[in-house]
Amino acid sequence: MAGEREGDRRSRERLGPPAARGAVGAGQEMTTDATLERALEALDREFGATVVRLQQMVAIDSTTGTEGEVQAWARHRMEQLGLEVEEVQLEESVLAAHPSAVVVPWSGKGRPNVVGRWRGAAAGRSLILNAHVDVVPPGPLESWTAHPFRPVIRGERLYGRGAADMKGGWVAIWAALRALRAAGFEPAGDLIFMSVVEEEAGGTHGTLACLLAGIRADAMIITEPLWTHLVVGHPGVLYFTVRIIGRTAHAAVAHQGVSALLESVPVVEALAALDRQRGEAHHMELFERLPGTAGRSVHLNLGTLRAGDWPSTVPGEAVIEGRISYLPGEKEEAVRAEVEAAVAAAAGASPWLSRHPPKVEWSGWRGRPWLQDPAHPLVEMMEEAARAERGAPVPLAADTAGLDARFAGELGIPCVVYGPRGGNEHGADEWVDLNSVRSLARTLVRAAHRWCGNAGQPAETKEEGS
Amino acid sequence: MAGEREGDRRSRERLGPPAARGAVGAGQEMTTDATLERALEALDREFGATVVRLQQMVAIDSTTGTEGEVQAWARHRMEQLGLEVEEVQLEESVLAAHPSAVVVPWSGKGRPNVVGRWRGAAAGRSLILNAHVDVVPPGPLESWTAHPFRPVIRGERLYGRGAADMKGGWVAIWAALRALRAAGFEPAGDLIFMSVVEEEAGGTHGTLACLLAGIRADAMIITEPLWTHLVVGHPGVLYFTVRIIGRTAHAAVAHQGVSALLESVPVVEALAALDRQRGEAHHMELFERLPGTAGRSVHLNLGTLRAGDWPSTVPGEAVIEGRISYLPGEKEEAVRAEVEAAVAAAAGASPWLSRHPPKVEWSGWRGRPWLQDPAHPLVEMMEEAARAERGAPVPLAADTAGLDARFAGELGIPCVVYGPRGGNEHGADEWVDLNSVRSLARTLVRAAHRWCGNAGQPAETKEEGS
Repeated sequence: MAGEREGDRRSRERLGPPAARGAVGAGQEMTTDATLERALEALDREFGATVVRLQQMVAIDSTTGTEGEVQAWARHRMEQLGLEVEEVQLEESVLAAHPSAVVVPWSGKGRPNVVGRWRGAAAGRSLILNAHVDVVPPGPLESWTAHPFRPVIRGERLYGRGAADMKGGWVAIWAALRALRAAGFEPAGDLIFMSVVEEEAGGTHGTLACLLAGIRADAMIITEPLWTHLVVGHPGVLYFTVRIIGRTAHAAVAHQGVSALLESVPVVEALAALDRQRGEAHHMELFERLPGTAGRSVHLNLGTLRAGDWPSTVPGEAVIEGRISYLPGEKEEAVRAEVEAAVAAAAGASPWLSRHPPKVEWSGWRGRPWLQDPAHPLVEMMEEAARAERGAPVPLAADTAGLDARFAGELGIPCVVYGPRGGNEHGADEWVDLNSVRSLARTLVRAAHRWCGNAGQPAETKEEGS
Repeated sequence: MAGEREGDRRSRERLGPPAARGAVGAGQEMTTDATLERALEALDREFGATVVRLQQMVAIDSTTGTEGEVQAWARHRMEQLGLEVEEVQLEESVLAAHPSAVVVPWSGKGRPNVVGRWRGAAAGRSLILNAHVDVVPPGPLESWTAHPFRPVIRGERLYGRGAADMKGGWVAIWAALRALRAAGFEPAGDLIFMSVVEEEAGGTHGTLACLLAGIRADAMIITEPLWTHLVVGHPGVLYFTVRIIGRTAHAAVAHQGVSALLESVPVVEALAALDRQRGEAHHMELFERLPGTAGRSVHLNLGTLRAGDWPSTVPGEAVIEGRISYLPGEKEEAVRAEVEAAVAAAAGASPWLSRHPPKVEWSGWRGRPWLQDPAHPLVEMMEEAARAERGAPVPLAADTAGLDARFAGELGIPCVVYGPRGGNEHGADEWVDLNSVRSLARTLVRAAHRWCGNAGQPAETKEEGS
């Protein structure tokens, strides 16, 4: 979910307190199509098997960069569903040359994407159901109540690293396809299960590689754990580094040196001022709907500062790492220029920095904004499917951090992000609400049935081994 | 030399450019005592062997904490000189309880101090010649012209880690004792070669342990590479840490967090202001004589700041590490109180820090000021010996960083620090001027002869294996 945090081990606290996220299991509208009805029944009846699959999947450590084992497991699951399965990866050189690529320390070797295709029987619309299998590192084990890779169920919640982000969403796709198969559904258009790697580190070897390899469709649904809203946009996000050089000296003659730490103070203050200024200047209502986002659509965060290396040395270097987000409509180049101008203005006011200007570098995460036209039939279909399942409208919103959805947007593939209710993603004691996983799976059954269309005749329910 | 830097790998640049350090090998006053004359001649004649010893010693990596091998070598050298040798170390609990102890990650096990005693033949004054054998880490090998532990001689300089700090001074002691022995000198008081560990990390297991173990004398000379002046004082030095707590949040909802980095800015500025204020308020002329020290007797250096751990997270913590120095006459408690008051005042002006006050901790290096009475006979004797050797007065000064000399001061043992000319101590391409090593050794011959007195009769020069 929303990458940008491959090294972080704290809770994102992004979804706000559980109370704010809406109730699970609201009233369910009756369906009229017999196949759909059977699929929903099969899904409910077999939900125990779905929970077992989720337990199995969470038990496989699939920290970004090490997704090989979980993808072998995923491939086996897809084959048991009778899908046409292929492993997808691209040449490193092709990926590296792509303007949306994020540089990561891993190659795609040994960690393919796994794509399972349920070939459409007629000329219906095709649909990709996308979920990433990688998880962020669990962080210190002592902060977990139970072991992060030994999932535990307490009440309606399953706890473990990746339970919400996003193995819950992955298993919901699996359960939906299995139920549709059991109900005798025959999609009129291709129904594609896209199990991807590396989302947490930017998605270059994952969703981007799949789409560039030609795995495309008329629409895509990503089941990230976004439960309160149907997500149809997110900001552009850039990471940057500011390097400030001083002149080192022993602390005993510190007055002979120039402290890079003290010189960094006006730069820090200038960037904090730019954050306030941009926060006031740039608003888009859609971006302030998710819990905790009210009043602020964009942020400039100074995430780290490292200055000096020893108490008795005048710091010779200070390095600031930051993240800036921007709304659809802003140009990446203009955003960069604003940051660089703020740093240059601060430097211009310092005699030392005027002669030794700080360097701004743009590296690490880099993702363009994504905004899905809310009037697209995919969005309307998902609104209907979610309302049918939840018994109340699920409003649209934009997320506040980057998602793989931007790759779909860049290639003109309509996309919506919607998933189970979870908590502590990227933190200790991550959990997913199992009722919401079931609700999501039922919503996906409705969505696939509606979007692709049923080309077949009603058939007897046929269970299959899995 | 002056510890405080066990982890640092940059040049201290403390001694200023070589040109400022005075010429080597100035005219030498004639001596009248025949034994002294023979000793000086022996020293000059055998100086080639001294250089070989220095090469051997520099070739042994004796980074602080790993001094076992070089001390075994040192013990062998002392035994060959015919000294009574003992290995000295104290119980950890005894050291830890001492108010001057600095906490280090090593025990004294396997890295003893080596003390060689040339027992006095009469009731003369005793003298300790002290040198530490540990060196700071060499830092990145690629910044060295040659390998730091494969000494190279170019012109008058020997290059290698520890060449100046302070194996040059150690070998000068060895050469002086050897020459005195060869000349038939019989000290009237004990002449003690104290080869110590851990000076670079505070001297707790080194000089402090030796003195507490009862190895004491009427005077001590430490041959740290301080060539331009006879050093008779240094400031008190304290390390401290300021911990500022914020409230972490994902950068996507950064306005929900409180940045420990931004909150640290007023604390940094308050401490920088305290530095300027103390720099103006506290002056002692003796402390502003060494190259580069003019105008500043005391410093408050903010050596490091570490804030946050990921670009897209609001920093939840910022930690500042600093060093403050103070002059003899100031109380350690008062200095601490000044720092704590400055931090508290800055915190008081911030709504967040008022409720979450930063914590100031005093840890790491901690050494009291040292000031040797310049009128003491030891100082006068050393002034005479150095002038006799250099042909011009060598002025007194205080060093700007802590030395093992403070332990002598605390126990009432008169002490002077004087040593060879060197450069790049703690940096790459550290070097020592071999002429200055010879000059130092000759000065030590004069000093030991004068201080301890010669109890024996003139004797024939008798070479011995070494």
